[in-house]
Amino acid sequence: MNEIKVPAGKLTSFTGACLAKAGLSAQHARLTADNLIFANLRGVDSHGVIRLKIYTDRLRAGGFKAKARPKVATDRASTALLDAGHGMGQVAANAAVKLAIRKAAKTGMGVVSVKNSNHFGACAFYAMQTLRHGMVGFAATNAGPTMAPTGGREGRLGNNAMAIAVPAGKFPPIVLDMATGAVAWGKIFVAQQAKVKIPTTWALDKDGVPTDDPNAAAHQGLIQPFGGYKGYGLSLLIDILTGVLSGGGFSTRVKTLYKQIEHPSEVAHTCAALRVDTFMPLKEFKQRMETIIELMHSCPGAPGAPRILVPGELEHETARRRADEGIPLNAELQNELRTLGVDLGVRPPF
Amino acid sequence: MNEIKVPAGKLTSFTGACLAKAGLSAQHARLTADNLIFANLRGVDSHGVIRLKIYTDRLRAGGFKAKARPKVATDRASTALLDAGHGMGQVAANAAVKLAIRKAAKTGMGVVSVKNSNHFGACAFYAMQTLRHGMVGFAATNAGPTMAPTGGREGRLGNNAMAIAVPAGKFPPIVLDMATGAVAWGKIFVAQQAKVKIPTTWALDKDGVPTDDPNAAAHQGLIQPFGGYKGYGLSLLIDILTGVLSGGGFSTRVKTLYKQIEHPSEVAHTCAALRVDTFMPLKEFKQRMETIIELMHSCPGAPGAPRILVPGELEHETARRRADEGIPLNAELQNELRTLGVDLGVRPPF
Repeated sequence: MNEIKVPAGKLTSFTGACLAKAGLSAQHARLTADNLIFANLRGVDSHGVIRLKIYTDRLRAGGFKAKARPKVATDRASTALLDAGHGMGQVAANAAVKLAIRKAAKTGMGVVSVKNSNHFGACAFYAMQTLRHGMVGFAATNAGPTMAPTGGREGRLGNNAMAIAVPAGKFPPIVLDMATGAVAWGKIFVAQQAKVKIPTTWALDKDGVPTDDPNAAAHQGLIQPFGGYKGYGLSLLIDILTGVLSGGGFSTRVKTLYKQIEHPSEVAHTCAALRVDTFMPLKEFKQRMETIIELMHSCPGAPGAPRILVPGELEHETARRRADEGIPLNAELQNELRTLGVDLGVRPPF
Repeated sequence: MNEIKVPAGKLTSFTGACLAKAGLSAQHARLTADNLIFANLRGVDSHGVIRLKIYTDRLRAGGFKAKARPKVATDRASTALLDAGHGMGQVAANAAVKLAIRKAAKTGMGVVSVKNSNHFGACAFYAMQTLRHGMVGFAATNAGPTMAPTGGREGRLGNNAMAIAVPAGKFPPIVLDMATGAVAWGKIFVAQQAKVKIPTTWALDKDGVPTDDPNAAAHQGLIQPFGGYKGYGLSLLIDILTGVLSGGGFSTRVKTLYKQIEHPSEVAHTCAALRVDTFMPLKEFKQRMETIIELMHSCPGAPGAPRILVPGELEHETARRRADEGIPLNAELQNELRTLGVDLGVRPPF
């Protein structure tokens, strides 16, 4: 069975229907589905429908509270704290960024942190909601511990991630969406299958020693932070500005998505919005963004290097293409979704 | 002539006196001196008195406007923009973080950007001013173009830098202060002198090709961003959130400190403060910080690895030691400062 391409709309409907059958309200199911398909459209398949099965498993096991509604715990002019009640990360983070936008509209800046939440998919989904309001958006999340501090050999930090989105006039928005790990586990599994070595900057073996052997990495090893101790520092700071600041889980208190699925995962997020026109007219800002993007694009290239991109550009192009052509699903994922659909009584769109 | 150690107080007085002779008010001279010696105390000698000569050269040449006062250009509840008038970066950024703290005290968050500024020394100096107010501090700056976007071979981005400071209870504050370059030029010069190769992740040669030859790097080469394209993305975002957002210089419009010293350098900064007790009582936050720091320290170590540190810990220890022992100055720097003192009519403290 080969790869097929499924229209984004049909895949969204299927995803939403599955989530609703697993207990979510129609509105929350649709929002979560939109978040997953957003990632697939942008080519970030690691955060797309590949997560649907574990989401429905967790909803049915109780680790995701299907009926939870985020509640405001503290509220000031420019800051707030939400308690997600162990509901969907997507629902809570969506509420957080909307509240941050309302605050930024009034004061110039809004920062909203979220505790008692869960996996929220792609960070860019939240950061980019600020763009149509003429704002710079920010979203960050922590995650279950899969990385060690520099010099360590046990998981103490998640592959914590952040996104920053900036309106850019005639160009697609700048969207930096990055995890603090050197690499996703998926790439190590691919190297295992292909029986090739990996760079020694990717992973540690079970003793905490950098390894070029993907099998040693996969056997109780850890991902390394990107860029050495600077990546460790960024990962720790994201954990502080999400988990510690919100009163939620942090470090080893956060549970990974795939284990103990009947328990809350204690993930925390922080979203923020910054109103550009409190600094200068939005039109002028966008012109300046066009200039800096052109300065990147026009940089003479190194020999043999691919064209120079700005953050989010490739994802934007992929999203346009996949909106036309559909979202590719490999055989394994088709099987998984088909089985899930049978299980939940939802007919898959392929 | 060997290395000597000079008491921090005496070195601060000498530095301030030189800056005053070069045209600064006593208050601005003292603030700038405090910033330089702060870096020396923390072991960040690249941002210490090694910069005094170029600062006084620029003050006398007119590239730094000695009499400039930062002016508020826009002002909202949680955001503001300052125009530094091409004065000292230290003076403008100090005003910016103080204003951000006042805003955060009222609304929970303050963000203040600065245009028409200059080199401001170590970022941590500004971010850490928030700590005694029970706030998380943030400071970022752009710089003259010395790095290429990923795939390029010409300078389009500075070794842009940022700091985040967080109060941490019984532990020293967490202070992440990092530039977005893989390495400082100084380390490449050291490798040149020692005739040793450098890692291929440090620099590009003049054609934009990664090189392990420090001579090829030094001859019209460029520093690489740390961590590959993620470091490029962070550097670009810092330029956007300082230079583009403030209406100041960005990318190739920023001048490096050591060239065209009679011209403004068009550096831009952004400082921010976040009031912790709008999320939870400060005491509770500090206890949570102690817990996360203990979780890092207690992580079992990799074989042969040095002890596990958190960001800012080593700098804190160095500062305590150097406050006792004095600040080490090598022979070259002693000569430079002695000559400068003679030139300006200030007696050096050694």
